[in-house]
Amino acid sequence: MGTLLERRKHRLGPGARLFYDDPVELVRGEGCWLWDAAGRRYLDCYNNVPHVGHCHPHVVEAISRQAATLNTHTRYLHSSVVDYVERLTATMGEPFSSAIMVNSGSEANDIALRLAGAITGNTGLIATNHTYHGNSTAVAQLSVTSPPASGYGSHVRHVPVPDPYRTPSDADGTAFAQHVESAVKSLQQSGQGVAALVICPYLANEGFPAVGFGFFEQAANIVRKAGGIVIADEVQPGFGRLGSHMWGHQRIGTTPDVITLGKPMANGHPVGAMVTSLALLTAFQKKQRYFSTFGGNPVSCAAAHAVLDVLENEKLVQRARATGEIALAGLRQVAGKHAMIGDVRGSGLFFGCEFVSDGKQPEAKAVQRIVNMMRERGVLLGSSGLHANMLKVRPPLAFGAEEANLFLTTFDDALAAL
Amino acid sequence: MGTLLERRKHRLGPGARLFYDDPVELVRGEGCWLWDAAGRRYLDCYNNVPHVGHCHPHVVEAISRQAATLNTHTRYLHSSVVDYVERLTATMGEPFSSAIMVNSGSEANDIALRLAGAITGNTGLIATNHTYHGNSTAVAQLSVTSPPASGYGSHVRHVPVPDPYRTPSDADGTAFAQHVESAVKSLQQSGQGVAALVICPYLANEGFPAVGFGFFEQAANIVRKAGGIVIADEVQPGFGRLGSHMWGHQRIGTTPDVITLGKPMANGHPVGAMVTSLALLTAFQKKQRYFSTFGGNPVSCAAAHAVLDVLENEKLVQRARATGEIALAGLRQVAGKHAMIGDVRGSGLFFGCEFVSDGKQPEAKAVQRIVNMMRERGVLLGSSGLHANMLKVRPPLAFGAEEANLFLTTFDDALAAL
Repeated sequence: MGTLLERRKHRLGPGARLFYDDPVELVRGEGCWLWDAAGRRYLDCYNNVPHVGHCHPHVVEAISRQAATLNTHTRYLHSSVVDYVERLTATMGEPFSSAIMVNSGSEANDIALRLAGAITGNTGLIATNHTYHGNSTAVAQLSVTSPPASGYGSHVRHVPVPDPYRTPSDADGTAFAQHVESAVKSLQQSGQGVAALVICPYLANEGFPAVGFGFFEQAANIVRKAGGIVIADEVQPGFGRLGSHMWGHQRIGTTPDVITLGKPMANGHPVGAMVTSLALLTAFQKKQRYFSTFGGNPVSCAAAHAVLDVLENEKLVQRARATGEIALAGLRQVAGKHAMIGDVRGSGLFFGCEFVSDGKQPEAKAVQRIVNMMRERGVLLGSSGLHANMLKVRPPLAFGAEEANLFLTTFDDALAAL
Repeated sequence: MGTLLERRKHRLGPGARLFYDDPVELVRGEGCWLWDAAGRRYLDCYNNVPHVGHCHPHVVEAISRQAATLNTHTRYLHSSVVDYVERLTATMGEPFSSAIMVNSGSEANDIALRLAGAITGNTGLIATNHTYHGNSTAVAQLSVTSPPASGYGSHVRHVPVPDPYRTPSDADGTAFAQHVESAVKSLQQSGQGVAALVICPYLANEGFPAVGFGFFEQAANIVRKAGGIVIADEVQPGFGRLGSHMWGHQRIGTTPDVITLGKPMANGHPVGAMVTSLALLTAFQKKQRYFSTFGGNPVSCAAAHAVLDVLENEKLVQRARATGEIALAGLRQVAGKHAMIGDVRGSGLFFGCEFVSDGKQPEAKAVQRIVNMMRERGVLLGSSGLHANMLKVRPPLAFGAEEANLFLTTFDDALAAL
């Protein structure tokens, strides 16, 4: 039958990528910890899907109880989905009141694009030139990190990512807005017009550059003036990860028209949502019939409710802020000892540092080596960013000061051995 | 705060449709039974998502156990997803060996369309003119029952649904193949070429017309000769529902290139898959990076494994066949007493009858009335079909002779009161 690795190549295809040069076979998770098949424990500094901690008992219990009670679609009445959308949108404030529940962030972004097209009458889409918003045919058109085999359609414009570490003037949104304005003009000239600007309000895949408050405001105004809407993909920054706010768009100070959610929403249960105002949702529904069989089912909603419960009960947003401050300060200390560490940045439990040489030359291979060395030392991490040289630390929110310190000492040790 | 119905309108939008003139608020499910908030019990003759029965304890236990142990994505090694694809494809035979696991039938069809485009180099799609294959932007292009607000792209051709009840010569696939051939020629003339013919092998949304064995064979040959592939959407007929076979394409006698799965796959847990050969998957992966965060996670796989366990342990495919024969014979008896019932047809636990007048004139309003009258009598059903006059009976496979008889006597009673 072959090894698991060989069997996997056959069943999932040779192109199904694994993390690390020496992949990890996981069998158990709890809090910020993962165990492999040989019983070795790993500190999880990377996974944002198990948002409130791997296998959190409150979420597990909610899923188990509801799965044993009822699981059906939303063409029958059930209070859970209505209660959840009410509770979720209360954390966002005006104009957010309503949602379409789906099963992944990709589905959320796909329906957001359909809404944008239907209500604006335009087809043009604008995203950054180092982004990823999901895997459906339509959403993959925005993706630069996994480009579509079919090539990009004539309706897509990618605008340059800000890089304030190297170009300090990028930190205010003026240059970004100018790029967006050019994209809008180009879409208008081609007759497509602008349907939406799609952004991650934390610019997560772009390497979370340290842009200033209000960074997106000018760009958002330009898009709206041209008849388009602003879609904030909160899959990575949302649900309190940034410590300072519940949502990334609140931290950056621009209210989008549509918010999309996925990964952390139900701690790994496949749930996503497109959130908007009742007015926009109603306008969309007048033009488009839409139904998701699994979207908003009682088990998915129970899991999503349970995540909000834990965030509140364990004060995890505040904890993300406090732990993030400790980690970031510690990372700056480590950086002082190693010339290869350039900019250290982040917010809450989403932080990292650039690997550089000769001033600010990106060192993408070095971060790959460090990620693999950390895996050998029992700490799971990843990398990202425009230059692929950004260490990406994005652990479950159960991550505390003790775990932050273990990450820091292991990182210091690995850097010394690099 | 308003009633649940009013709050739902606000939170999910006024366009979020409910079943029945008097919607049912469900709170509990077990086997083929559902209970409303007032404690009233309903016989579920419609839901195919809870495939092995609502809240089946074996599936619930598998979900609960795995959710408490580990839930992560497939960029770490985990045996469950590999074992599942191996087990699933063993029920399909050659050339099926490999899969991409996703979270819904829509996602499965979306990735199937991406694969078809990437490996054929063509863009043209052919589907029937009364179909629905899912809700993503790309897949909705195939949908006639929920048409895209943006209109159909120039790459889409819809071919007429066979209606052998009215046109007996439709039962063999010659006329259908001629329509497909015209569509292929049209796509070739426009320079798009044919990427895929997408079919439900049971023509479920089309009203499951009684077409003959080999119905799709000529059409499939035409599409393949033109360089396209055949995608069988097994979301409705698959997993043994038809009683005669595990898969709809086996019953009709045409082996597709790609199979897509969704709804019943994990008894309501959001799971879908695109299944194909290792050769086609590898060819696709060479052209397209693809990753689904939730797709193939250990909890989804545990739920999907558990469904296969129950199908085997409780011999549900054989049961579907036996119960289906009883139900269909009973339905023919009832039809003999009521002039409005025209054709009675189906296979296993997917059957129904046409409501007609003056010979074979479709009576869509009558079936709507009956569906609502049955709901008042505690039996949940739906309707479908090219003429919207087909009573659709598609219960969980836990449905047995006793439930079939309750359905039949209630139906007879409702028809008398119509």
